[in-house]
Amino acid sequence: MNNIFIKKLINRIKTIDSLLCVGLDSRYDRLPEFAKANRSVFEAILYFNSAVVRATHDLTSAYKSNLAFYGGFGAEALEALRQTNLYIQANYSEIVTLADCKRSEMGDSVSLVKSEIFDWLAFDCVMVTPWFGSDTIMDYLNDQSKGVCVYVHDSNPSAPEIQAVKLHDGRRLYEYLADLVANKWNSNGNVFIEVGATYPAAFSQIRKIVGDEMLILTAGIGAQGGKVSDIEKFMGKDNQRMLVNSSRGIIFAGANTDTEEVYLKKVRNAALKLRNELRANA
Amino acid sequence: MNNIFIKKLINRIKTIDSLLCVGLDSRYDRLPEFAKANRSVFEAILYFNSAVVRATHDLTSAYKSNLAFYGGFGAEALEALRQTNLYIQANYSEIVTLADCKRSEMGDSVSLVKSEIFDWLAFDCVMVTPWFGSDTIMDYLNDQSKGVCVYVHDSNPSAPEIQAVKLHDGRRLYEYLADLVANKWNSNGNVFIEVGATYPAAFSQIRKIVGDEMLILTAGIGAQGGKVSDIEKFMGKDNQRMLVNSSRGIIFAGANTDTEEVYLKKVRNAALKLRNELRANA
Repeated sequence: MNNIFIKKLINRIKTIDSLLCVGLDSRYDRLPEFAKANRSVFEAILYFNSAVVRATHDLTSAYKSNLAFYGGFGAEALEALRQTNLYIQANYSEIVTLADCKRSEMGDSVSLVKSEIFDWLAFDCVMVTPWFGSDTIMDYLNDQSKGVCVYVHDSNPSAPEIQAVKLHDGRRLYEYLADLVANKWNSNGNVFIEVGATYPAAFSQIRKIVGDEMLILTAGIGAQGGKVSDIEKFMGKDNQRMLVNSSRGIIFAGANTDTEEVYLKKVRNAALKLRNELRANA
Repeated sequence: MNNIFIKKLINRIKTIDSLLCVGLDSRYDRLPEFAKANRSVFEAILYFNSAVVRATHDLTSAYKSNLAFYGGFGAEALEALRQTNLYIQANYSEIVTLADCKRSEMGDSVSLVKSEIFDWLAFDCVMVTPWFGSDTIMDYLNDQSKGVCVYVHDSNPSAPEIQAVKLHDGRRLYEYLADLVANKWNSNGNVFIEVGATYPAAFSQIRKIVGDEMLILTAGIGAQGGKVSDIEKFMGKDNQRMLVNSSRGIIFAGANTDTEEVYLKKVRNAALKLRNELRANA
């Protein structure tokens, strides 16, 4: 069972009673001084990530990393991301890692995205943009040890521009897509979805469509203005079919010049606060 | 004028009278023996790409590289891609390079995609997936020296699943998007679009909507079944507002065991054939 991605993730949420997902969006230029001092880009990112993981591992059910925050600093930042994932695997193998990479390849190139995300960068789950249709996700469905997360309705201001267009049958595009994912694409049980907390009305509709069993990863709590109270009704079965991501609010909770100890205490407290808030509202 | 991306590209098309775009989808595992023998992954890819560029540079208006075909082979493949682009810049500066990366970041992370694609990997143009709306492209609009290409209707079999859904006003989603790009997003003149040659009816509609001035990059000719005759009516102003990409059909035109000389002759002939076919149909 431990090699089945979705079961492993749901089991983790239940075992530690936490909907928290910590976003390791560790862009080098924003790392605190304790991590950067006398270290290369590679060393600083890996040092920072490992420290954040040690400070939060018992509170979180997943770590999500946005690849843009690494690729922007070149090959050594990507190598640090890879080694971060290997560090998590080696020391906290019950926690899954999500590649927030917004990929949308198809045909020939999907197998190479798999090599990049699963083999090279050592993630457990790929996040895919549905713009190109089912060709983008079909090749991920035969391996239940890896997860696939589809962006259905995002948290950013312009998300509705495309995602919420009104269709000929009166539905919104995100409703059509949620139906497609739940009833067609998720044929092998390893697909789940991402929905932004900043659009509660859309969230409510999407939860109805995909049902209470499906995991929903949500973003937009905190810095983007979403509140836990906006999503508490959509947590699904046992109030445990949700992952709530927070990135900056946790990993950059400390001040730039804090000592390592003080900085990591603030990181842990931020994670603890959101985890408890989610628990209280469940 | 030479630092304005769109003008540079249109000027190139006109000067050499070629709508050709060569796709450097140089996945390491498919490289011919002459390139691989006694070379590391990095060396083999760079050697192959440089040789293909030398064999085709006078025939092509652009080189497009799908990042998935590099990322799948790790950091050294990406480094080879970077050095390929630097090689093109240094020796054939009149030819633009397109990053077929299907990125869709927004907010904070867009500046990092810019660093990755323009600074680190040294491309002239980023290709973006419109799923997250205008937040994805706004940050690219202030710099006319870089191009932005939006995937409007793709060539793959499942492209219509999302891209061609029928809207409440009777239009298809790709029509709504084409209108958005032409009349709203392209406010600074550096945006163009990608349309698959395998859907000629959609192509016809999209050309009408964006007008004859806008550049359209098309894929799907050759291996995917699209024909030059399917797109000859949509080439736009002076029959020169189009780029026709071919990847495998050109770079893998040789046989695996061909000598370098024989292989590159086949590459050149394939490029010449498509370039002339496009010219004859213009």
